Amino acid sequence: MTKVGIIGGTGYTGVELLRLLVNHPRVELISIISRQQAGNKVADLFPSLRGHVDLAFQSPQDNALAECDVVFSATPSGVAMQQAAALLDGGAVFIDLSADFRLKQASTWEHWYGQEHSAPELLVQAVYGLPEVNRDKLKHADLIACAGCYPTASQLALIPLLDTGLIDNDIVIDAKSGVSGAGRGESVDNLLSEASESIKAYAVNGHRHLPEILQGLQTYASEPLLLTFVPHLAPMIRGILVSCYTSLLDSSADLQQLYENYYANEPFVDVMPAGISPQTRSVRGSNYCRIGVFRPQNGDKAVILAVEDNLVKGAAGQAVQCMNIRMNWPEVTGLEQVALMP
Amino acid sequence: MTKVGIIGGTGYTGVELLRLLVNHPRVELISIISRQQAGNKVADLFPSLRGHVDLAFQSPQDNALAECDVVFSATPSGVAMQQAAALLDGGAVFIDLSADFRLKQASTWEHWYGQEHSAPELLVQAVYGLPEVNRDKLKHADLIACAGCYPTASQLALIPLLDTGLIDNDIVIDAKSGVSGAGRGESVDNLLSEASESIKAYAVNGHRHLPEILQGLQTYASEPLLLTFVPHLAPMIRGILVSCYTSLLDSSADLQQLYENYYANEPFVDVMPAGISPQTRSVRGSNYCRIGVFRPQNGDKAVILAVEDNLVKGAAGQAVQCMNIRMNWPEVTGLEQVALMP
Amino acid sequence: MTKVGIIGGTGYTGVELLRLLVNHPRVELISIISRQQAGNKVADLFPSLRGHVDLAFQSPQDNALAECDVVFSATPSGVAMQQAAALLDGGAVFIDLSADFRLKQASTWEHWYGQEHSAPELLVQAVYGLPEVNRDKLKHADLIACAGCYPTASQLALIPLLDTGLIDNDIVIDAKSGVSGAGRGESVDNLLSEASESIKAYAVNGHRHLPEILQGLQTYASEPLLLTFVPHLAPMIRGILVSCYTSLLDSSADLQQLYENYYANEPFVDVMPAGISPQTRSVRGSNYCRIGVFRPQNGDKAVILAVEDNLVKGAAGQAVQCMNIRMNWPEVTGLEQVALMP
Amino acid sequence: MTKVGIIGGTGYTGVELLRLLVNHPRVELISIISRQQAGNKVADLFPSLRGHVDLAFQSPQDNALAECDVVFSATPSGVAMQQAAALLDGGAVFIDLSADFRLKQASTWEHWYGQEHSAPELLVQAVYGLPEVNRDKLKHADLIACAGCYPTASQLALIPLLDTGLIDNDIVIDAKSGVSGAGRGESVDNLLSEASESIKAYAVNGHRHLPEILQGLQTYASEPLLLTFVPHLAPMIRGILVSCYTSLLDSSADLQQLYENYYANEPFVDVMPAGISPQTRSVRGSNYCRIGVFRPQNGDKAVILAVEDNLVKGAAGQAVQCMNIRMNWPEVTGLEQVALMP
Repeated sequence: MTKVGIIGGTGYTGVELLRLLVNHPRVELISIISRQQAGNKVADLFPSLRGHVDLAFQSPQDNALAECDVVFSATPSGVAMQQAAALLDGGAVFIDLSADFRLKQASTWEHWYGQEHSAPELLVQAVYGLPEVNRDKLKHADLIACAGCYPTASQLALIPLLDTGLIDNDIVIDAKSGVSGAGRGESVDNLLSEASESIKAYAVNGHRHLPEILQGLQTYASEPLLLTFVPHLAPMIRGILVSCYTSLLDSSADLQQLYENYYANEPFVDVMPAGISPQTRSVRGSNYCRIGVFRPQNGDKAVILAVEDNLVKGAAGQAVQCMNIRMNWPEVTGLEQVALMP
Repeated sequence: MTKVGIIGGTGYTGVELLRLLVNHPRVELISIISRQQAGNKVADLFPSLRGHVDLAFQSPQDNALAECDVVFSATPSGVAMQQAAALLDGGAVFIDLSADFRLKQASTWEHWYGQEHSAPELLVQAVYGLPEVNRDKLKHADLIACAGCYPTASQLALIPLLDTGLIDNDIVIDAKSGVSGAGRGESVDNLLSEASESIKAYAVNGHRHLPEILQGLQTYASEPLLLTFVPHLAPMIRGILVSCYTSLLDSSADLQQLYENYYANEPFVDVMPAGISPQTRSVRGSNYCRIGVFRPQNGDKAVILAVEDNLVKGAAGQAVQCMNIRMNWPEVTGLEQVALMP
Repeated sequence: MTKVGIIGGTGYTGVELLRLLVNHPRVELISIISRQQAGNKVADLFPSLRGHVDLAFQSPQDNALAECDVVFSATPSGVAMQQAAALLDGGAVFIDLSADFRLKQASTWEHWYGQEHSAPELLVQAVYGLPEVNRDKLKHADLIACAGCYPTASQLALIPLLDTGLIDNDIVIDAKSGVSGAGRGESVDNLLSEASESIKAYAVNGHRHLPEILQGLQTYASEPLLLTFVPHLAPMIRGILVSCYTSLLDSSADLQQLYENYYANEPFVDVMPAGISPQTRSVRGSNYCRIGVFRPQNGDKAVILAVEDNLVKGAAGQAVQCMNIRMNWPEVTGLEQVALMP
Repeated sequence: MTKVGIIGGTGYTGVELLRLLVNHPRVELISIISRQQAGNKVADLFPSLRGHVDLAFQSPQDNALAECDVVFSATPSGVAMQQAAALLDGGAVFIDLSADFRLKQASTWEHWYGQEHSAPELLVQAVYGLPEVNRDKLKHADLIACAGCYPTASQLALIPLLDTGLIDNDIVIDAKSGVSGAGRGESVDNLLSEASESIKAYAVNGHRHLPEILQGLQTYASEPLLLTFVPHLAPMIRGILVSCYTSLLDSSADLQQLYENYYANEPFVDVMPAGISPQTRSVRGSNYCRIGVFRPQNGDKAVILAVEDNLVKGAAGQAVQCMNIRMNWPEVTGLEQVALMP
């Protein structure tokens, strides 16, 4: 059994990692670190784990991670970059679910995250954790920067069109996320009484995932992209839907066929039948990204819809998928849950 | 007191009309028609009206509408067009909340609604019920075709930009609606177990409100518009948010100022302060449309966000506002409810 | 116009008071006090009030309340008791929505609220603000302690049975409340991601409303009551349902008739027709308490169900109703809103 | 691999069975019967199953069940009783998730379900599918009548108290269920617009699960029970919470210890630590029933709270658990999913 540890197991991506890892047949969970909860039993904080996790949270001082073969980091921005080097030096594979190592340019990261990057020298070595794009590199990566939630759905939705040169450079992504994407921190805005029975856009003038999406998409584009990305908060717990709008350069292409071919061998990307719109509930709790491909009124606009569970394919599931690839295990190991519907 | 009747009081727009009319100081509600519920007390079907409405539903055969000065019709497509002529002949003002008289071309209506139009000769006389556009015409209109829910928010969001010639002809409207927009009919898709905790696009290849929005916007455009309209179902009861994406021809314009000036005298259009995104809950139960104006990263894209309660400004409230204008009453009469928040 | 002020206008009962008062035809709102928000516009915090409230929050130091004829206090426990005396001395009617003056015994209050009572001498003078019980006393009360949310529904549900001596002393109240009852404070437990799609009991071993309910019910009982009160958090914003279980001493009584007679003249208590269960949504945003009366299988158990909007009849609406009585205005003034359904 | 078939795979218990069975390591799903959907692909109806189920629904005429070792029936009342005999004769184990074989007296069943029982002779042979009560009998049962959703939680909550003779005969069960319990049929009452943001009691005068609960509890009681059972509809998809109120005959008993001991060896019954109230979300998607034990104010009332996922431990999970027992497999096989939280 591969020994696994988690730094920051008290947020939603942390508890979701725990849900997936306790039933993963190749790993043994040996340590969960939380400064704040050190000493408390994990299952006292998350009763859903009663009967599955008997560990207590450990303090960062406990050095329990030294034994781990794989360390997941599910911490706020700016924490993982301080811990990665030591763990890598110790021989662990370090899989970061935060944004610390996603952007290739430290200056871009610093601009959007408002702090200095403390480990810019590691950015070269970090492999962006989006298996559909980087599968080969992930096989040998020791530092994996898992793709963000919005960026995962956005890139999976748009790369086939960009990669085949079918669209122009003007792209609109109207994204909708459940409230769990905002995390488990105390907050007035995310109270049920504030966030349910309502929908709103937020961060319209610039969301941190914009440069990440742009970096990923630009790789496939022949000219600079003009990307508009507007996230919305939807009154639900889980789920992301990105609705992408672009103009086709060649309206004779069979988009449905293109997508089906493009993702034919992907275990977790599912192209819906023609005319069927994907719903977020069809992926709740599962690692799928489901994509619907439309050309309204057979016109020149392509509308690509992609759904994922923000905590699974958008976070913890993706991290496990990256681990599976890195460890040379079957990619779907521990990720075969069926979505919870209804 | 002005005598008022309602045809089709059993759906959500019907019960919302009742909510507004029972406290309207200028009207007396004398008849509510429902073939299906004839003889049953209105308040037995809608306990929220206990203590406010003592009427029973009447059969269409009862001819109770003959005495009415104003008749609202809140029926499915294709019903109002069969009843309008007789009521107009009888001297009533006829305010239709369905789509029967919204489109100027009968052929367009027939294409989108899949049936023959039985009263195309009335289309010339019908005034489109969007007060912000048609206030003067509404003052003398006997046949009022209230604007639809998506079209109201969409037009209020985009007309200032089109009217001032600031944008090109390529417009994307990504709309999100609560489930009440789908009506009160029996349905599997709209069960709580199906529609909550999920979001999806629907009618991506063409929604009936597309031609209505296009008809309204085209009036203000100098060249044919290329309109993409994709509605989404959000897991909430009430509320519509339209997120509109367009390209600015002149990026020097002060959009915030433009919108504030454009709607300075409108009692029910509220331009949010710069940088503030409107939430649907801020209009729940009220007749406001609130608009947020953005130019992300100071680029060439304008992002206009508009929210309304689909059952109020998107339906029953708008109908009452049209009545107030037609009857020469203060426009806000009976519409001063504050939104229910939280 | 009667001049009205509010202390603590930033919580949910505060904003609900504002919603009701801005359309109340007899009052002028002249001051809203909040230490934390002093200087900020009220409508910036609560966009639902845009167009209705143009005031800014004032600091307690501003002494703006000195001009007020009526002062509402919507503050956390322990605040109102420090302010009541001065305002009463200044001639204002003081209507407290907190629990500070609800319990007649200071020692009981201190036990349940965990702090010393700073104004026990005012408890004698305070009139418990439940109009259906204390209407006459309220007409002359200068210090009104509005009944709590659970206690209002619980007492209205059970008093007819106790007052007529029909039940024994063993009473179970299983109460369900929407999350707004927990207030607008930062919290993890009340995040949408934590509280939606779930239900739980809380404070099973003793909730602060237990002594208040007991005090109220005991007045009508001939022997000491054995009261079990278990509140539950339901995944919705507004609404309280109390399900009350008692044993009938005389099973020949016509309970339906009893309740209809008992509340025949109450403007805001509505006894549902026999066999109809009240739903919280039938009172959302309105000041009604609706009651359903059952005797399952015609046995010896009475099951009484009562619903209210916790923020209206359970808080702000009740406070306005008390003001109306005190000021000798028609009791329903400003409280005629129809519930928002759907 | 054991060959398994499902009759009635189009409702929520059916799709939940599919979710569990596709990842069950001992079974092969070979047939899913639906008269209405015959010929359609299962994954077209339930996109959550895309990639997991490649079967199409089959007509009852196809006789596909003849090859099955185990047949689950997830049909409305009155269907399974017509099919059981033939399948049993064919040698299958028949596991019914409906109520057809739960009640021992055909006359009681006929009274509550309003139709004649067509196979009363099978009632003797049917084993009630509640493993915690009937594990030994289930090992040899060919006809298993899985316990209902409310009855499962109610019996697990109350049996320890009855079995030890600690309480009197007067029991109140106030139950709350998510809307999925009402099934996937077309309905106005269960629309999101009707059922969300509201709570109500229903079937107060008598719910079909009352005789089933009574039958189960009476077995453990020394005198006739006086049972009051009132179900409520809570605004969520999944989850049942039963709040049980009883009077203790002996208040010296350590209830916490009693429950922990009573269920010490049960894999799916989890007694929460003292003072901790169980939440339905802690079991969402999992097969656990979690129980909280309270004695408010150390008085004579016991308050027992039990939660389960109505579609798992209350239906499909229980059926799989029964199959595991019957087939002599480890009881938790295929049921180790961790609850989805948040």
